[in-house]
Amino acid sequence: MDRVPPVSIALWHRCSVATMARGSPYGLVEDAALVVEDGRIAWLGPRAALPAEWDAQAQARHDCGGALITPGLIDCHTHLVYGGDRAHEFELRLNGASYEDIARAGGGIASTVRATRAASEDELLEQSRVRLRALKAEGVTTVEIKSGYGLSLAEERKCLRVARRLGQEEGVAVRTTFLGAHALPPEFAGRADDYITEVLNMLPALHGEGLVDAVDAFCERIAFSPEQTARVFEAASSLALPVKLHAEQLSDSGGAALAARYGALSCDHLEWLSEEGARAMAAANSVAVLLPGAFYFLRETRLPPVDLLRSQGVPIAVSTDCNPGSSPCTSLLLMLNMACTLFRLTPEEALAGVTRAAARALGLTDRGTLAPGQRADFVLWDVARPAQLCYAIGANPRRQTVAGGLAA
Amino acid sequence: MDRVPPVSIALWHRCSVATMARGSPYGLVEDAALVVEDGRIAWLGPRAALPAEWDAQAQARHDCGGALITPGLIDCHTHLVYGGDRAHEFELRLNGASYEDIARAGGGIASTVRATRAASEDELLEQSRVRLRALKAEGVTTVEIKSGYGLSLAEERKCLRVARRLGQEEGVAVRTTFLGAHALPPEFAGRADDYITEVLNMLPALHGEGLVDAVDAFCERIAFSPEQTARVFEAASSLALPVKLHAEQLSDSGGAALAARYGALSCDHLEWLSEEGARAMAAANSVAVLLPGAFYFLRETRLPPVDLLRSQGVPIAVSTDCNPGSSPCTSLLLMLNMACTLFRLTPEEALAGVTRAAARALGLTDRGTLAPGQRADFVLWDVARPAQLCYAIGANPRRQTVAGGLAA
Ligand SMILES: [Zn+2]
Ligand SMILES: [Zn+2]
Repeated sequence: MDRVPPVSIALWHRCSVATMARGSPYGLVEDAALVVEDGRIAWLGPRAALPAEWDAQAQARHDCGGALITPGLIDCHTHLVYGGDRAHEFELRLNGASYEDIARAGGGIASTVRATRAASEDELLEQSRVRLRALKAEGVTTVEIKSGYGLSLAEERKCLRVARRLGQEEGVAVRTTFLGAHALPPEFAGRADDYITEVLNMLPALHGEGLVDAVDAFCERIAFSPEQTARVFEAASSLALPVKLHAEQLSDSGGAALAARYGALSCDHLEWLSEEGARAMAAANSVAVLLPGAFYFLRETRLPPVDLLRSQGVPIAVSTDCNPGSSPCTSLLLMLNMACTLFRLTPEEALAGVTRAAARALGLTDRGTLAPGQRADFVLWDVARPAQLCYAIGANPRRQTVAGGLAA
Repeated sequence: MDRVPPVSIALWHRCSVATMARGSPYGLVEDAALVVEDGRIAWLGPRAALPAEWDAQAQARHDCGGALITPGLIDCHTHLVYGGDRAHEFELRLNGASYEDIARAGGGIASTVRATRAASEDELLEQSRVRLRALKAEGVTTVEIKSGYGLSLAEERKCLRVARRLGQEEGVAVRTTFLGAHALPPEFAGRADDYITEVLNMLPALHGEGLVDAVDAFCERIAFSPEQTARVFEAASSLALPVKLHAEQLSDSGGAALAARYGALSCDHLEWLSEEGARAMAAANSVAVLLPGAFYFLRETRLPPVDLLRSQGVPIAVSTDCNPGSSPCTSLLLMLNMACTLFRLTPEEALAGVTRAAARALGLTDRGTLAPGQRADFVLWDVARPAQLCYAIGANPRRQTVAGGLAA
């Protein structure tokens, strides 16, 4: 039996490409061609300008039939590895139960921690796989996954291992974030500082096992203080791990400025961000990750200061915040619409938020835009213009995903 | 070649069934069995109570593997047949254009009327099919489709024919609604009464062609007056056609009470509904159709009076309002979440809103609940409890749809 040599040079044509490069709206190239060689983009431009060598060398040719191509989508802030769900709590609340009633009944984040701990690694993998597949079905090729429902060394390890395995099994690039400082586990009730000490013990161990790409914390009156957050960031920095922060979601606790001092990749939520915080983020090159799903689900009314971010030149990313308590959401396309409808981002800003800026929020420079040398992660969409991806609610016009040059 | 006789009795088991019958939460039957004979439900109850005759007669047995079964979903208010889209307008607005700028540039509903008229019947069918398929993918088995972007006899006919053809080709039950009184076409500018006269000419013609199941109008300061609406309703009543009304969306113009006088199947939107209007609806047995997608997309702040509807005993339906201008939405599951999150319906109310109450809003008594004698329209979902369908955002846990007893 003859073996067909693997195709290493492929030509994609009859498409428009929203490269998301700066300088023109969406970095759009009409009637484009795109050459992929060994998982990277080798050439991209107007079809008419395609050098004859590339045309001659292409071993595969893909007629895109007029599709719009964008970079593979990047969901840069998720908590998608968790056990159980909180549908019952959602129902109780809509039937009149108060937050206190629910807490007394063992609800809230504590119930997710219990369900996560109760699941075996394989069970957790299967429960979480459904959510990753939903993201993937909408063209997501890179996803960040945080730990933070284990809250002990063994349980955080389990969550991070599940995240790594999911990435391998589903062919999605996964970036893991250690979020031990997410919530106080019940066994540390009243001893937050002691728990942070425990977090500082977990971090080098998990990092040593190759499970940690970045470190995050939840800095808020209902979670950890700026001082506790700083202890976690010091530990991360001593391991040369980048940091990011859940900051200014419910109040202005100065988290963004604190994170900026540690050169944070991103500060996330930011409804209460101050001008000082925005300036600090700009100086530190931190990305603002906006999470309209949580804003919507929690019925918040205070909008993140988009004009301030614009005027300070802080890049804006958009993400699902997929989590069982405040954003049980697995549609990044819907987040594009919510970013426009609720936060008044332009469609171009929203799309940059799930591509170019989302890559920056993960410290990745090889994706998020389409240009020679970048990873060949891209999506073919059955739409004529990029804005249609933001305008439609509940549609999924994805025709095909290519990840690392391969059909996914 | 032997011909296998068609299976006419099928047994579905290993499932819970949310029958949506009144009397218990979701009308839930655990560990249920369901017998389908010739497209109707012949028996439904706890598996343990299944009469031996049914068990013996079943020609097909379906192990549902623990799925939750609900009635087929019913989207009772859509404008899904239209040409073009309004993504460009959405983008212009987010880039700072005013409604006046957009109207001057030929935008708004006028642009959809132009695009709808410009499309051939086949083109319109293909453009609209994408939207119907998105609904169908989430378990919708019955959908109402309104005309109202043609605004002339020939063009309204084209839209209604497309609606009928879509139903046949896609295997979805389509109920058509003539909404000639949707907007004033440009050729009648300044002559609304004359246009209503034209609408009254269209109606019997289209009805004579079997294209009209109900009649609707848009009663609002920016559309037609109560007097003009009454002329349309008089004409509908003289043809024994049921009516429904877009009412009290932007102001209280007394539309609900007017519609109730004509025994309306439903009044839809209702953010500004008065107590008097709600009483009239209750007396007329009209359903309140709530449209959270439009509320969300238009960033409305005035909530429909849900407590008033509850206290008056007005049934509440929930629908996508799928249309290019104010709700470019093709996810009825997302509407379940928005009905809960934004309007504070309970999950049970929301689910009744896309099943039992939605059937009533269309005057259909043979579906919307699961019980012997009803159409065998149902959906198998990969969830454990009904509330999960309302809680998740952007997930589609549909495993299988059965419509008229047949896998769809
Ligand atoms: Zn988060
Ligand atoms: Zn409508």
